[in-house]
Amino acid sequence: MNDTGPLILLTNDDGIHAEGLRHLKSVAEKIGRVRVVAPETEQSAVGHSITLYDPIRAHEVTKNGSFYGYGIGGTPADSVKLALYSLLSRPPDLVISGINNGANLGINVLYSGTVSAATEAAILGVPAMAVSFDKKRDPRFEWALGHIDKIARWVLESGLPPGVALNVNIPALPPGEVLGYKLTRQGLRKFRESFEQREDPRGNRYYWLSGEIPIDETDEDLDVAALRQGFVSITPLFYDLTAHTYRENLACSLKKL
Amino acid sequence: MNDTGPLILLTNDDGIHAEGLRHLKSVAEKIGRVRVVAPETEQSAVGHSITLYDPIRAHEVTKNGSFYGYGIGGTPADSVKLALYSLLSRPPDLVISGINNGANLGINVLYSGTVSAATEAAILGVPAMAVSFDKKRDPRFEWALGHIDKIARWVLESGLPPGVALNVNIPALPPGEVLGYKLTRQGLRKFRESFEQREDPRGNRYYWLSGEIPIDETDEDLDVAALRQGFVSITPLFYDLTAHTYRENLACSLKKL
Repeated sequence: MNDTGPLILLTNDDGIHAEGLRHLKSVAEKIGRVRVVAPETEQSAVGHSITLYDPIRAHEVTKNGSFYGYGIGGTPADSVKLALYSLLSRPPDLVISGINNGANLGINVLYSGTVSAATEAAILGVPAMAVSFDKKRDPRFEWALGHIDKIARWVLESGLPPGVALNVNIPALPPGEVLGYKLTRQGLRKFRESFEQREDPRGNRYYWLSGEIPIDETDEDLDVAALRQGFVSITPLFYDLTAHTYRENLACSLKKL
Repeated sequence: MNDTGPLILLTNDDGIHAEGLRHLKSVAEKIGRVRVVAPETEQSAVGHSITLYDPIRAHEVTKNGSFYGYGIGGTPADSVKLALYSLLSRPPDLVISGINNGANLGINVLYSGTVSAATEAAILGVPAMAVSFDKKRDPRFEWALGHIDKIARWVLESGLPPGVALNVNIPALPPGEVLGYKLTRQGLRKFRESFEQREDPRGNRYYWLSGEIPIDETDEDLDVAALRQGFVSITPLFYDLTAHTYRENLACSLKKL
Protein backbone atom coordinates (compact mmCIF):
# COMPACT_ATOMS: atom_id res chain seq x y z
CA MET A 1 0.00 0.00 0.00
CA ASN A 2 1.06 3.54 -0.70
CA ASP A 3 -0.65 6.49 0.93
CA THR A 4 1.36 9.23 -0.68
CA GLY A 5 2.16 10.11 -4.25
CA PRO A 6 -0.22 10.67 -7.14
CA LEU A 7 -3.87 9.60 -6.92
CA ILE A 8 -4.61 6.85 -9.44
CA LEU A 9 -8.10 5.69 -10.33
CA LEU A 10 -8.42 2.17 -11.72
CA THR A 11 -11.33 0.76 -13.66
CA ASN A 12 -11.97 -1.89 -16.35
CA ASP A 13 -14.69 -3.61 -18.34
CA ASP A 14 -14.11 -7.17 -17.16
CA GLY A 15 -15.58 -6.31 -13.76
CA ILE A 16 -14.19 -5.51 -10.32
CA HIS A 17 -13.36 -9.14 -9.59
CA ALA A 18 -11.24 -9.61 -12.71
CA GLU A 19 -7.71 -10.94 -12.47
CA GLY A 20 -6.38 -8.22 -14.78
CA LEU A 21 -7.59 -5.48 -12.44
CA ARG A 22 -5.94 -7.18 -9.46
CA HIS A 23 -2.60 -7.19 -11.31
CA LEU A 24 -3.07 -3.58 -12.36
CA LYS A 25 -3.71 -2.65 -8.73
CA SER A 26 -0.46 -4.28 -7.65
CA VAL A 27 1.48 -2.12 -10.14
CA ALA A 28 -0.39 1.11 -9.38
CA GLU A 29 0.12 0.75 -5.63
CA LYS A 30 3.87 1.02 -6.19
CA ILE A 31 3.35 4.38 -7.89
CA GLY A 32 0.80 6.14 -5.72
CA ARG A 33 -2.51 6.09 -3.86
CA VAL A 34 -4.99 3.84 -5.62
CA ARG A 35 -8.79 3.90 -5.83
CA VAL A 36 -10.77 1.22 -7.65
CA VAL A 37 -14.18 2.02 -9.16
CA ALA A 38 -15.22 -0.64 -11.66
CA PRO A 39 -18.35 -2.37 -12.98
CA GLU A 40 -19.69 -5.15 -10.76
CA THR A 41 -20.08 -7.51 -13.69
CA GLU A 42 -18.37 -8.10 -17.02
CA GLN A 43 -19.16 -5.34 -19.51
CA SER A 44 -17.20 -6.31 -22.59
CA ALA A 45 -18.12 -4.67 -25.91
CA VAL A 46 -20.42 -2.16 -24.23
CA GLY A 47 -18.57 0.63 -26.06
CA HIS A 48 -19.19 4.08 -24.71
CA SER A 49 -22.53 3.17 -23.10
CA ILE A 50 -23.77 5.28 -20.24
CA THR A 51 -26.74 4.66 -17.98
CA LEU A 52 -29.40 7.36 -18.28
CA TYR A 53 -32.70 5.65 -17.56
CA ASP A 54 -31.74 3.56 -14.57
CA PRO A 55 -30.31 4.53 -11.23
CA ILE A 56 -26.70 3.52 -10.66
CA ARG A 57 -25.63 1.75 -7.49
CA ALA A 58 -22.19 1.64 -5.91
CA HIS A 59 -21.28 -1.19 -3.50
CA GLU A 60 -18.22 -1.34 -1.32
CA VAL A 61 -16.26 -4.45 -2.25
CA THR A 62 -14.05 -6.07 0.37
CA LYS A 63 -11.29 -8.60 -0.31
CA ASN A 64 -9.33 -10.50 2.34
CA GLY A 65 -10.99 -8.34 4.97
CA SER A 66 -10.00 -4.94 3.60
CA PHE A 67 -11.70 -2.43 1.32
CA TYR A 68 -10.87 -3.14 -2.33
CA GLY A 69 -13.00 -0.63 -4.22
CA TYR A 70 -16.47 0.32 -5.43
CA GLY A 71 -18.41 -2.10 -7.60
CA ILE A 72 -20.72 -0.15 -9.89
CA GLY A 73 -24.04 -1.35 -11.29
CA GLY A 74 -23.26 0.24 -14.64
CA THR A 75 -20.77 0.50 -17.48
CA PRO A 76 -17.07 1.44 -17.50
CA ALA A 77 -17.93 5.00 -18.59
CA ASP A 78 -20.51 5.20 -15.75
CA SER A 79 -17.82 4.08 -13.31
CA VAL A 80 -15.45 6.85 -14.38
CA LYS A 81 -18.18 9.50 -14.25
CA LEU A 82 -19.40 8.40 -10.82
CA ALA A 83 -15.85 8.22 -9.45
CA LEU A 84 -14.93 11.68 -10.68
CA TYR A 85 -18.21 13.39 -9.80
CA SER A 86 -19.10 11.69 -6.54
CA LEU A 87 -16.90 8.99 -5.05
CA LEU A 88 -13.44 10.56 -5.08
CA SER A 89 -12.64 13.53 -2.90
CA ARG A 90 -10.48 15.11 -5.61
CA PRO A 91 -9.77 14.49 -9.33
CA PRO A 92 -7.21 11.73 -9.79
CA ASP A 93 -3.86 12.41 -11.43
CA LEU A 94 -4.25 9.42 -13.72
CA VAL A 95 -6.97 6.96 -14.73
CA ILE A 96 -5.91 3.48 -15.86
CA SER A 97 -8.46 1.11 -17.37
CA GLY A 98 -7.56 -2.57 -17.59
CA ILE A 99 -5.74 -4.86 -17.71
CA ASN A 100 -8.09 -6.08 -20.41
CA ASN A 101 -8.06 -9.78 -21.11
CA GLY A 102 -7.25 -9.54 -24.84
CA ALA A 103 -6.08 -6.81 -27.21
CA ASN A 104 -8.15 -3.75 -28.22
CA LEU A 105 -6.99 -2.85 -31.72
CA GLY A 106 -8.31 -1.31 -34.90
CA ILE A 107 -12.03 -0.60 -35.03
CA ASN A 108 -12.38 -2.71 -31.90
CA VAL A 109 -11.44 0.52 -30.14
CA LEU A 110 -14.98 1.74 -30.88
CA TYR A 111 -16.60 -1.28 -29.22
CA SER A 112 -14.31 -1.54 -26.24
CA GLY A 113 -15.52 -0.70 -22.77
CA THR A 114 -11.90 -0.64 -21.57
CA VAL A 115 -10.97 2.07 -24.05
CA SER A 116 -14.20 4.02 -23.51
CA ALA A 117 -13.46 4.32 -19.80
CA ALA A 118 -10.15 6.01 -20.66
CA THR A 119 -11.79 8.24 -23.28
CA GLU A 120 -14.43 9.26 -20.73
CA ALA A 121 -11.72 10.25 -18.26
CA ALA A 122 -9.98 12.28 -20.99
CA ILE A 123 -13.25 14.08 -21.78
CA LEU A 124 -13.54 14.92 -18.10
CA GLY A 125 -10.02 16.37 -18.12
CA VAL A 126 -7.95 13.62 -16.49
CA PRO A 127 -4.91 11.98 -18.15
CA ALA A 128 -5.89 8.41 -18.91
CA MET A 129 -4.73 5.17 -20.44
CA ALA A 130 -6.41 1.92 -21.41
CA VAL A 131 -4.23 -1.17 -21.07
CA SER A 132 -4.92 -4.43 -22.87
CA PHE A 133 -2.88 -7.60 -22.86
CA ASP A 134 -2.88 -9.81 -25.91
CA LYS A 135 -3.34 -12.98 -23.93
CA LYS A 136 -2.65 -16.20 -25.75
CA ARG A 137 -2.93 -19.81 -24.64
CA ASP A 138 -0.98 -19.38 -21.41
CA PRO A 139 -1.88 -16.02 -19.92
CA ARG A 140 0.82 -14.34 -17.88
CA PHE A 141 -0.41 -10.94 -16.73
CA GLU A 142 2.94 -10.67 -14.95
CA TRP A 143 4.60 -10.12 -18.33
CA ALA A 144 2.62 -6.88 -18.79
CA LEU A 145 3.29 -5.28 -15.42
CA GLY A 146 6.72 -3.76 -16.02
CA HIS A 147 5.48 -2.03 -19.19
CA ILE A 148 2.46 -0.60 -17.40
CA ASP A 149 4.63 0.71 -14.57
CA LYS A 150 6.94 2.43 -17.06
CA ILE A 151 4.18 3.99 -19.18
CA ALA A 152 2.13 5.14 -16.18
CA ARG A 153 5.15 6.87 -14.64
CA TRP A 154 5.94 8.47 -18.00
CA VAL A 155 2.36 9.82 -18.34
CA LEU A 156 2.42 11.15 -14.77
CA GLU A 157 5.71 12.91 -15.47
CA SER A 158 5.13 14.18 -19.03
CA GLY A 159 1.38 14.68 -18.94
CA LEU A 160 -0.88 14.30 -21.98
CA PRO A 161 -2.48 16.94 -24.20
CA PRO A 162 -6.00 17.85 -22.97
CA GLY A 163 -8.56 15.29 -24.07
CA VAL A 164 -6.02 12.70 -25.18
CA ALA A 165 -6.09 9.16 -23.80
CA LEU A 166 -3.60 6.41 -24.59
CA ASN A 167 -4.64 3.04 -25.89
CA VAL A 168 -1.87 0.66 -24.82
CA ASN A 169 -1.68 -2.90 -26.13
CA ILE A 170 0.93 -5.28 -24.77
CA PRO A 171 2.02 -8.39 -26.67
CA ALA A 172 1.89 -11.86 -25.11
CA LEU A 173 5.66 -12.04 -24.72
CA PRO A 174 8.07 -12.22 -21.80
CA PRO A 175 9.50 -8.73 -21.12
CA GLY A 176 12.87 -9.63 -22.67
CA GLU A 177 11.29 -10.54 -26.02
CA VAL A 178 9.31 -7.32 -26.45
CA LEU A 179 10.88 -5.20 -29.21
CA GLY A 180 10.07 -1.81 -27.64
CA TYR A 181 7.39 0.86 -27.57
CA LYS A 182 5.75 2.08 -30.76
CA LEU A 183 3.51 5.10 -31.24
CA THR A 184 0.74 3.88 -33.52
CA ARG A 185 -2.53 4.88 -35.13
CA GLN A 186 -5.81 3.03 -35.01
CA GLY A 187 -6.27 0.39 -37.71
CA LEU A 188 -9.33 0.99 -39.88
CA ARG A 189 -9.98 -2.34 -41.56
CA LYS A 190 -13.32 -3.95 -40.90
CA PHE A 191 -13.37 -7.27 -39.12
CA ARG A 192 -13.70 -10.58 -40.89
CA GLU A 193 -16.98 -11.50 -39.28
CA SER A 194 -20.23 -13.31 -39.83
CA PHE A 195 -23.32 -14.55 -38.04
CA GLU A 196 -23.81 -18.20 -37.34
CA GLN A 197 -27.49 -19.08 -37.53
CA ARG A 198 -28.80 -21.69 -35.09
CA GLU A 199 -32.07 -22.98 -33.65
CA ASP A 200 -32.87 -23.22 -29.96
CA PRO A 201 -34.52 -26.38 -28.51
CA ARG A 202 -37.95 -24.81 -29.16
CA GLY A 203 -37.21 -24.30 -32.86
CA ASN A 204 -36.59 -20.53 -32.67
CA ARG A 205 -33.83 -19.10 -34.79
CA TYR A 206 -30.99 -17.11 -33.23
CA TYR A 207 -27.63 -15.73 -34.31
CA TRP A 208 -24.13 -15.68 -32.88
CA LEU A 209 -21.69 -13.04 -34.02
CA SER A 210 -18.23 -14.40 -34.73
CA GLY A 211 -15.33 -12.42 -36.06
CA GLU A 212 -11.71 -11.54 -35.83
CA ILE A 213 -9.45 -8.62 -36.52
CA PRO A 214 -7.78 -8.81 -39.91
CA ILE A 215 -4.11 -9.43 -39.22
CA ASP A 216 -2.87 -8.62 -42.71
CA GLU A 217 -2.51 -4.88 -42.10
CA THR A 218 0.96 -4.08 -43.40
CA ASP A 219 1.46 -0.42 -42.51
CA GLU A 220 3.95 -0.45 -39.66
CA ASP A 221 2.30 2.59 -38.07
CA LEU A 222 -0.85 0.67 -37.27
CA ASP A 223 -1.69 -0.71 -33.84
CA VAL A 224 -2.50 -4.12 -35.29
CA ALA A 225 0.86 -4.42 -37.08
CA ALA A 226 2.95 -3.11 -34.18
CA LEU A 227 1.49 -5.60 -31.71
CA ARG A 228 1.89 -8.49 -34.13
CA GLN A 229 5.55 -7.60 -34.63
CA GLY A 230 6.13 -7.73 -30.87
CA PHE A 231 6.00 -4.05 -29.91
CA VAL A 232 3.97 -2.47 -27.13
CA SER A 233 1.53 -0.40 -29.20
CA ILE A 234 0.64 3.05 -27.84
CA THR A 235 -2.11 4.89 -29.74
CA PRO A 236 -3.06 8.40 -28.63
CA LEU A 237 -6.84 8.78 -28.96
CA PHE A 238 -8.97 11.91 -29.14
CA TYR A 239 -12.76 11.96 -28.90
CA ASP A 240 -13.45 13.91 -32.09
CA LEU A 241 -15.18 11.78 -34.73
CA THR A 242 -15.45 14.61 -37.27
CA ALA A 243 -14.16 13.56 -40.70
CA HIS A 244 -12.07 16.73 -41.00
CA THR A 245 -10.32 15.65 -44.20
CA TYR A 246 -13.61 15.31 -46.00
CA ARG A 247 -15.35 18.40 -44.73
CA GLU A 248 -14.15 20.67 -47.52
CA ASN A 249 -15.13 18.34 -50.34
CA LEU A 250 -18.54 17.92 -48.81
CA ALA A 251 -19.02 21.67 -48.37
CA CYS A 252 -18.88 22.04 -52.12
CA SER A 253 -21.25 19.17 -52.74
CA LEU A 254 -23.62 20.48 -50.07
CA LYS A 255 -24.31 23.63 -52.05
CA LYS A 256 -26.48 21.51 -54.34
CA LEU A 257 -28.95 20.99 -51.49
CA MET B 1 -44.89 1.45 -50.99
CA ASN B 2 -42.15 1.49 -53.54
CA ASP B 3 -40.68 -1.69 -54.96
CA THR B 4 -38.15 -0.14 -57.27
CA GLY B 5 -35.34 2.36 -56.75
CA PRO B 6 -32.48 2.22 -54.26
CA LEU B 7 -32.54 -0.19 -51.32
CA ILE B 8 -32.70 1.71 -48.04
CA LEU B 9 -32.16 0.12 -44.64
CA LEU B 10 -33.71 1.89 -41.66
CA THR B 11 -32.77 1.44 -38.03
CA ASN B 12 -32.77 3.48 -34.82
CA ASP B 13 -32.09 3.32 -31.10
CA ASP B 14 -35.56 4.16 -29.80
CA GLY B 15 -36.80 0.73 -30.89
CA ILE B 16 -38.81 -0.62 -33.80
CA HIS B 17 -42.10 0.70 -32.43
CA ALA B 18 -40.90 4.30 -32.15
CA GLU B 19 -42.85 7.11 -33.77
CA GLY B 20 -39.69 8.63 -35.27
CA LEU B 21 -38.95 5.42 -37.19
CA ARG B 22 -42.51 5.32 -38.56
CA HIS B 23 -42.08 8.85 -39.91
CA LEU B 24 -38.68 7.99 -41.35
CA LYS B 25 -40.24 5.01 -43.11
CA SER B 26 -42.86 7.21 -44.72
CA VAL B 27 -40.13 9.44 -46.21
CA ALA B 28 -37.87 6.59 -47.30
CA GLU B 29 -40.69 4.76 -49.08
CA LYS B 30 -41.02 7.72 -51.45
CA ILE B 31 -37.36 7.30 -52.41
CA GLY B 32 -36.90 3.56 -52.79
CA ARG B 33 -37.38 0.06 -51.40
CA VAL B 34 -37.29 0.08 -47.63
CA ARG B 35 -36.23 -2.54 -45.10
CA VAL B 36 -36.51 -1.99 -41.34
CA VAL B 37 -34.14 -3.79 -38.94
CA ALA B 38 -34.18 -2.14 -35.52
CA PRO B 39 -33.84 -3.02 -31.82
CA GLU B 40 -36.99 -4.43 -30.23
CA THR B 41 -36.68 -2.14 -27.23
CA GLU B 42 -35.34 1.32 -26.52
CA GLN B 43 -31.52 1.39 -26.57
CA SER B 44 -30.66 5.01 -25.90
CA ALA B 45 -27.10 5.84 -24.84
CA VAL B 46 -25.85 2.35 -25.64
CA GLY B 47 -23.09 3.90 -27.74
CA HIS B 48 -21.34 1.51 -30.05
CA SER B 49 -22.26 -1.58 -28.02
CA ILE B 50 -22.32 -4.92 -29.76
CA THR B 51 -23.55 -8.24 -28.43
CA LEU B 52 -20.79 -10.85 -28.22
CA TYR B 53 -21.71 -13.10 -25.33
CA ASP B 54 -25.41 -13.59 -25.99
CA PRO B 55 -27.21 -14.93 -29.01
CA ILE B 56 -29.16 -12.35 -31.02
CA ARG B 57 -32.76 -12.94 -32.03
CA ALA B 58 -34.67 -11.40 -34.91
CA HIS B 59 -38.50 -11.31 -34.81
CA GLU B 60 -40.74 -10.40 -37.71
CA VAL B 61 -42.83 -7.42 -36.66
CA THR B 62 -46.24 -6.91 -38.26
CA LYS B 63 -48.25 -3.67 -38.21
CA ASN B 64 -51.81 -3.29 -39.51
CA GLY B 65 -51.62 -6.80 -40.93
CA SER B 66 -48.49 -6.35 -43.02
CA PHE B 67 -44.78 -7.00 -42.46
CA TYR B 68 -43.11 -3.94 -40.94
CA GLY B 69 -39.56 -5.10 -40.26
CA TYR B 70 -37.27 -7.17 -38.05
CA GLY B 71 -37.15 -6.45 -34.33
CA ILE B 72 -33.70 -7.34 -33.01
CA GLY B 73 -32.87 -8.48 -29.49
CA GLY B 74 -29.74 -6.38 -29.48
CA THR B 75 -28.26 -2.94 -30.01
CA PRO B 76 -28.44 -0.56 -32.99
CA ALA B 77 -24.96 -1.66 -34.13
CA ASP B 78 -26.07 -5.32 -33.83
CA SER B 79 -29.10 -4.52 -35.99
CA VAL B 80 -26.96 -3.06 -38.77
CA LYS B 81 -24.51 -5.96 -38.66
CA LEU B 82 -27.25 -8.60 -38.71
CA ALA B 83 -29.11 -6.82 -41.53
CA LEU B 84 -26.03 -6.53 -43.71
CA TYR B 85 -24.58 -9.97 -43.02
CA SER B 86 -27.73 -12.08 -42.82
CA LEU B 87 -31.17 -10.53 -43.26
CA LEU B 88 -30.83 -8.52 -46.48
CA SER B 89 -30.30 -10.25 -49.81
CA ARG B 90 -27.89 -7.54 -50.98
CA PRO B 91 -26.06 -4.54 -49.42
CA PRO B 92 -28.37 -1.52 -49.17
CA ASP B 93 -27.58 1.68 -51.06
CA LEU B 94 -28.15 3.76 -47.95
CA VAL B 95 -28.62 3.22 -44.22
CA ILE B 96 -30.63 5.80 -42.28
CA SER B 97 -30.77 5.67 -38.49
CA GLY B 98 -33.49 7.66 -36.74
CA ILE B 99 -35.47 9.78 -36.46
CA ASN B 100 -34.05 10.14 -32.97
CA ASN B 101 -36.25 11.77 -30.40
CA GLY B 102 -33.83 14.57 -29.43
CA ALA B 103 -30.59 15.99 -30.84
CA ASN B 104 -27.25 14.13 -30.91
CA LEU B 105 -24.60 16.82 -30.67
CA GLY B 106 -21.08 17.34 -29.34
CA ILE B 107 -19.63 14.52 -27.30
CA ASN B 108 -23.11 13.02 -27.14
CA VAL B 109 -22.14 11.56 -30.52
CA LEU B 110 -19.95 9.07 -28.62
CA TYR B 111 -22.84 7.87 -26.45
CA SER B 112 -25.51 7.77 -29.11
CA GLY B 113 -26.91 4.48 -30.37
CA THR B 114 -28.49 6.34 -33.31
CA VAL B 115 -25.12 7.64 -34.48
CA SER B 116 -23.32 4.36 -33.80
CA ALA B 117 -25.70 2.52 -36.12
CA ALA B 118 -24.71 4.89 -38.93
CA THR B 119 -21.01 4.57 -38.07
CA GLU B 120 -21.31 0.79 -38.09
CA ALA B 121 -22.85 0.91 -41.58
CA ALA B 122 -20.01 3.18 -42.75
CA ILE B 123 -17.43 0.73 -41.36
CA LEU B 124 -19.17 -2.02 -43.33
CA GLY B 125 -18.92 0.06 -46.50
CA VAL B 126 -22.46 1.43 -46.89
CA PRO B 127 -23.26 5.17 -47.14
CA ALA B 128 -25.09 6.09 -43.97
CA MET B 129 -26.69 8.93 -42.06
CA ALA B 130 -28.02 9.36 -38.55
CA VAL B 131 -30.97 11.73 -38.23
CA SER B 132 -31.98 13.38 -34.97
CA PHE B 133 -34.75 15.87 -34.36
CA ASP B 134 -34.37 18.47 -31.64
CA LYS B 135 -37.85 17.95 -30.29
CA LYS B 136 -39.14 20.58 -27.92
CA ARG B 137 -42.40 20.78 -25.96
CA ASP B 138 -44.66 20.08 -28.94
CA PRO B 139 -42.99 17.45 -31.11
CA ARG B 140 -43.73 17.65 -34.83
CA PHE B 141 -41.74 14.99 -36.62
CA GLU B 142 -43.49 16.21 -39.79
CA TRP B 143 -41.28 19.30 -39.71
CA ALA B 144 -38.19 17.12 -40.20
CA LEU B 145 -39.40 15.01 -43.12
CA GLY B 146 -38.70 17.36 -46.03
CA HIS B 147 -35.10 17.85 -44.87
CA ILE B 148 -34.53 14.12 -44.56
CA ASP B 149 -35.94 13.52 -48.03
CA LYS B 150 -33.61 16.14 -49.51
CA ILE B 151 -30.46 14.96 -47.73
CA ALA B 152 -31.12 11.26 -48.40
CA ARG B 153 -31.57 11.91 -52.14
CA TRP B 154 -28.42 14.03 -52.15
CA VAL B 155 -26.37 11.25 -50.48
CA LEU B 156 -27.76 8.66 -52.91
CA GLU B 157 -26.82 10.88 -55.85
CA SER B 158 -23.44 12.25 -54.66
CA GLY B 159 -22.25 9.33 -52.55
CA LEU B 160 -20.02 9.68 -49.52
CA PRO B 161 -16.28 9.03 -49.10
CA PRO B 162 -15.62 5.45 -47.91
CA GLY B 163 -16.16 5.10 -44.18
CA VAL B 164 -17.88 8.46 -43.75
CA ALA B 165 -21.32 8.72 -42.13
CA LEU B 166 -23.35 11.90 -41.74
CA ASN B 167 -24.69 13.02 -38.40
CA VAL B 168 -27.75 15.13 -39.23
CA ASN B 169 -29.51 17.23 -36.58
CA ILE B 170 -32.72 19.05 -37.44
CA PRO B 171 -33.97 22.01 -35.38
CA ALA B 172 -37.47 22.06 -33.87
CA LEU B 173 -38.71 24.63 -36.39
CA PRO B 174 -41.32 24.60 -39.15
CA PRO B 175 -39.57 24.10 -42.53
CA GLY B 176 -40.02 27.77 -43.49
CA GLU B 177 -38.12 28.97 -40.41
CA VAL B 178 -35.04 26.77 -40.92
CA LEU B 179 -32.08 28.91 -42.01
CA GLY B 180 -30.47 26.28 -44.28
CA TYR B 181 -27.96 23.42 -44.18
CA LYS B 182 -24.64 23.81 -42.46
CA LEU B 183 -21.61 21.51 -42.63
CA THR B 184 -20.36 21.31 -39.07
CA ARG B 185 -17.83 19.62 -36.82
CA GLN B 186 -18.48 17.79 -33.60
CA GLY B 187 -18.51 19.97 -30.48
CA LEU B 188 -15.93 18.93 -27.89
CA ARG B 189 -17.08 20.56 -24.67
CA LYS B 190 -17.90 18.28 -21.79
CA PHE B 191 -21.45 18.22 -20.50
CA ARG B 192 -22.58 20.14 -17.47
CA GLU B 193 -23.52 17.10 -15.46
CA SER B 194 -23.71 15.68 -11.99
CA PHE B 195 -25.04 12.77 -10.02
CA GLU B 196 -28.02 13.14 -7.75
CA GLN B 197 -27.68 10.92 -4.71
CA ARG B 198 -30.86 9.30 -3.33
CA GLU B 199 -31.96 6.51 -1.04
CA ASP B 200 -34.37 3.74 -2.00
CA PRO B 201 -37.19 2.67 0.39
CA ARG B 202 -34.83 0.12 1.97
CA GLY B 203 -32.24 2.75 2.77
CA ASN B 204 -29.79 1.86 0.00
CA ARG B 205 -28.01 4.68 -1.76
CA TYR B 206 -28.26 5.11 -5.53
CA TYR B 207 -27.33 7.74 -8.10
CA TRP B 208 -29.06 9.36 -11.07
CA LEU B 209 -26.98 10.97 -13.78
CA SER B 210 -28.30 14.33 -14.89
CA GLY B 211 -26.72 16.60 -17.41
CA GLU B 212 -27.06 18.79 -20.41
CA ILE B 213 -25.02 19.89 -23.38
CA PRO B 214 -23.34 23.25 -22.85
CA ILE B 215 -25.09 25.67 -25.20
CA ASP B 216 -22.51 28.41 -24.94
CA GLU B 217 -20.32 27.09 -27.74
CA THR B 218 -19.66 30.10 -29.93
CA ASP B 219 -17.74 28.71 -32.90
CA GLU B 220 -20.23 28.77 -35.78
CA ASP B 221 -18.70 25.64 -37.29
CA LEU B 222 -19.86 23.51 -34.39
CA ASP B 223 -22.91 21.25 -34.53
CA VAL B 224 -24.22 22.66 -31.24
CA ALA B 225 -24.04 26.27 -32.47
CA ALA B 226 -25.50 25.57 -35.93
CA LEU B 227 -28.56 23.82 -34.53
CA ARG B 228 -29.17 26.51 -31.95
CA GLN B 229 -29.04 29.17 -34.66
CA GLY B 230 -31.72 27.35 -36.65
CA PHE B 231 -29.66 25.45 -39.23
CA VAL B 232 -29.86 21.78 -40.10
CA SER B 233 -26.44 20.62 -38.86
CA ILE B 234 -24.64 18.02 -40.99
CA THR B 235 -21.43 16.61 -39.49
CA PRO B 236 -19.40 14.11 -41.51
CA LEU B 237 -18.03 11.47 -39.14
CA PHE B 238 -15.17 9.02 -39.58
CA TYR B 239 -14.41 6.13 -37.25
CA ASP B 240 -10.76 6.97 -36.55
CA LEU B 241 -10.16 8.04 -32.97
CA THR B 242 -6.39 8.48 -33.40
CA ALA B 243 -5.21 11.87 -32.08
CA HIS B 244 -3.22 12.52 -35.26
CA THR B 245 -2.31 16.08 -34.32
CA TYR B 246 -0.58 14.92 -31.15
CA ARG B 247 1.21 11.90 -32.49
CA GLU B 248 4.40 13.75 -33.41
CA ASN B 249 4.79 15.53 -30.08
CA LEU B 250 4.27 12.26 -28.29
CA ALA B 251 6.80 10.43 -30.47
CA CYS B 252 9.47 12.73 -29.12
CA SER B 253 8.35 12.31 -25.54
CA LEU B 254 8.11 8.56 -25.99
CA LYS B 255 11.84 8.25 -26.59
CA LYS B 256 12.32 8.78 -22.86
CA LEU B 257 10.66 5.42 -22.20
